[in-house]
Amino acid sequence: MPELRKDPIIGRWVIISTDRAKRPTDFVRDHIQNKGGFCPFCYGNEAKTPPEVLAYRPGQNGNQALRDTPGWTVRVVPNKFPALGIEGNLNRQAEGMFDKMNGIGAHEVIIETPDHAQNLATMPAKRVEDTLWAFRDRILDLKQDKRFKYILIFKNHGEAAGASLEHPHSQLIALPILPRRVVDELEGSKQYFIYKERCVFCDMIRQELDTGTRVVAENESFVTLAPYAPRFPFETWILPKRHASAFENSSSQMFTDLARAVKTLLLKADRVLENPAYNLVIHTAPVQENDLEYYHWHIEFMPKLTKTAGFEWGTGFYINPTPPEESAKFLREVSVEETAQVAGK
Amino acid sequence: MPELRKDPIIGRWVIISTDRAKRPTDFVRDHIQNKGGFCPFCYGNEAKTPPEVLAYRPGQNGNQALRDTPGWTVRVVPNKFPALGIEGNLNRQAEGMFDKMNGIGAHEVIIETPDHAQNLATMPAKRVEDTLWAFRDRILDLKQDKRFKYILIFKNHGEAAGASLEHPHSQLIALPILPRRVVDELEGSKQYFIYKERCVFCDMIRQELDTGTRVVAENESFVTLAPYAPRFPFETWILPKRHASAFENSSSQMFTDLARAVKTLLLKADRVLENPAYNLVIHTAPVQENDLEYYHWHIEFMPKLTKTAGFEWGTGFYINPTPPEESAKFLREVSVEETAQVAGK
Repeated sequence: MPELRKDPIIGRWVIISTDRAKRPTDFVRDHIQNKGGFCPFCYGNEAKTPPEVLAYRPGQNGNQALRDTPGWTVRVVPNKFPALGIEGNLNRQAEGMFDKMNGIGAHEVIIETPDHAQNLATMPAKRVEDTLWAFRDRILDLKQDKRFKYILIFKNHGEAAGASLEHPHSQLIALPILPRRVVDELEGSKQYFIYKERCVFCDMIRQELDTGTRVVAENESFVTLAPYAPRFPFETWILPKRHASAFENSSSQMFTDLARAVKTLLLKADRVLENPAYNLVIHTAPVQENDLEYYHWHIEFMPKLTKTAGFEWGTGFYINPTPPEESAKFLREVSVEETAQVAGK
Repeated sequence: MPELRKDPIIGRWVIISTDRAKRPTDFVRDHIQNKGGFCPFCYGNEAKTPPEVLAYRPGQNGNQALRDTPGWTVRVVPNKFPALGIEGNLNRQAEGMFDKMNGIGAHEVIIETPDHAQNLATMPAKRVEDTLWAFRDRILDLKQDKRFKYILIFKNHGEAAGASLEHPHSQLIALPILPRRVVDELEGSKQYFIYKERCVFCDMIRQELDTGTRVVAENESFVTLAPYAPRFPFETWILPKRHASAFENSSSQMFTDLARAVKTLLLKADRVLENPAYNLVIHTAPVQENDLEYYHWHIEFMPKLTKTAGFEWGTGFYINPTPPEESAKFLREVSVEETAQVAGK
């Protein structure tokens, strides 16, 4: 008998098809492959991107003479084909009954490593941590701009997940509006808080750590788990154990622990799902609201294993052939070396 | 300058990238191809599907002796691998803080034609109309079952859109819950009605027919248009001009006109986008609420032209490279013969 499960945060029901449960090997995947050719994100090609807005150069941070030259470990540049423009006013206006405004915002690329052939799973944890610090630094900078209401950080890994360049990178989009999904999460978790006077994510973490069936991994600061009502096979979330609504306010210990949690999850996914394409999205509070007692930031990991997205877009309705208890078990039980740099390949 | 536009129904903001506008030829498509091989939906293979729940046999309707034999024009069968089970009680229950219920529902397949090589674009309009009548007949039957709150009718055309069989078919899923997207539309249009005392869709139709820039086609009963804030390139909606909240309550003249509107849109899309994969979804009122003054049923057509779905799933945020004024212009200006049976191939 299939089961209908309700996401406790936004109230979305999902079908979990327990009858025809899919194992990792049942999915047809678009594997990630290196294709070669010119890469604007590799050392020596710094002039092929817009000028950098941030770069870490060990021992040389802040040395302006080195700007847009090799030697960096993480480099952030504006997107060459930005979806939004940084200059101008919002200029909100009507078009008859419709509402519009200028597409003001920032669209940046975080180049995670100079090494074209690495990725967040295979990089040393310390380098993954640098990427997380770069996310934070860019958020803190862009937060100053009061036109922006939300900063979205996400990663498309692999062509099937929407990546157009294979060199490891994440993207940042600063928006003058709240995306619909963010509104749903904020409203849902606020309703829960009004009713229970507790954070729904904190409740979830407590129950998941207690039962353990959907837990994938855990360290000092973070728990990695399959959510109760996942939309997609092997959808996995990483949540801070202590309540916090904003990613960028994390302590330095938390960045260290998060880098380990991200790396571990990606190594496990690469092992179990054979280097799948995936999307990784940071869900955090709106930039002008720093300390929400009802919202809890987290990372959502969605491997791209199925092709049925169109139906799901159109309906907001999801059929998931892999129960989260099973995906969590696969990911939990596969052992990976956190220190591995080319593990599982 | 890109533009941010707000969907007036659910309040979702979308980036319309006017700077890097994409023309139809800019998309890499997965074209639809016939692959041959055994097909359970062709004449003579009726025993390979579960027993039919409905079939139209011209001049022979209701003749039980002909059940599950060839000679039908439209045939409806339960899905052989249903996402939901028809038997049993909902049995709503808690799992700690979570909510679940049995996966009770119906999952049916509407086989639109016995001809494997046809599709809704190339079939005679009268045959398309038969398919619409079959949708209606199944909805009216399933509505009797008070366990069901929503009946979702959709079509995945082409592998890239999630179709697993190429023989032309649609699907029906009867659900004991309301999908999230339906809740959003109902709530959004209700808010608008409370504020304006008018249906938001009726307002939209009036404005669109007045300006004309986003209109693709029009007949006596229906208007086909690109919505103001589309999520996807060439997203197109078909709406009844007169207010009505439930698809299944349409008059017979409306089914005739809708068949023509659907066929025309699909022929145009096949011409402009070279036979794209697509999803078609009927958005209609919950089954137990027949006459909503604030909700307006319609069909949403989404060709599968881009691969960035993962990001959009994760964020609820959409970047659309094709302004709806342009997609509407392409579709409006391409001429097609409604009577064409293999047009544009």
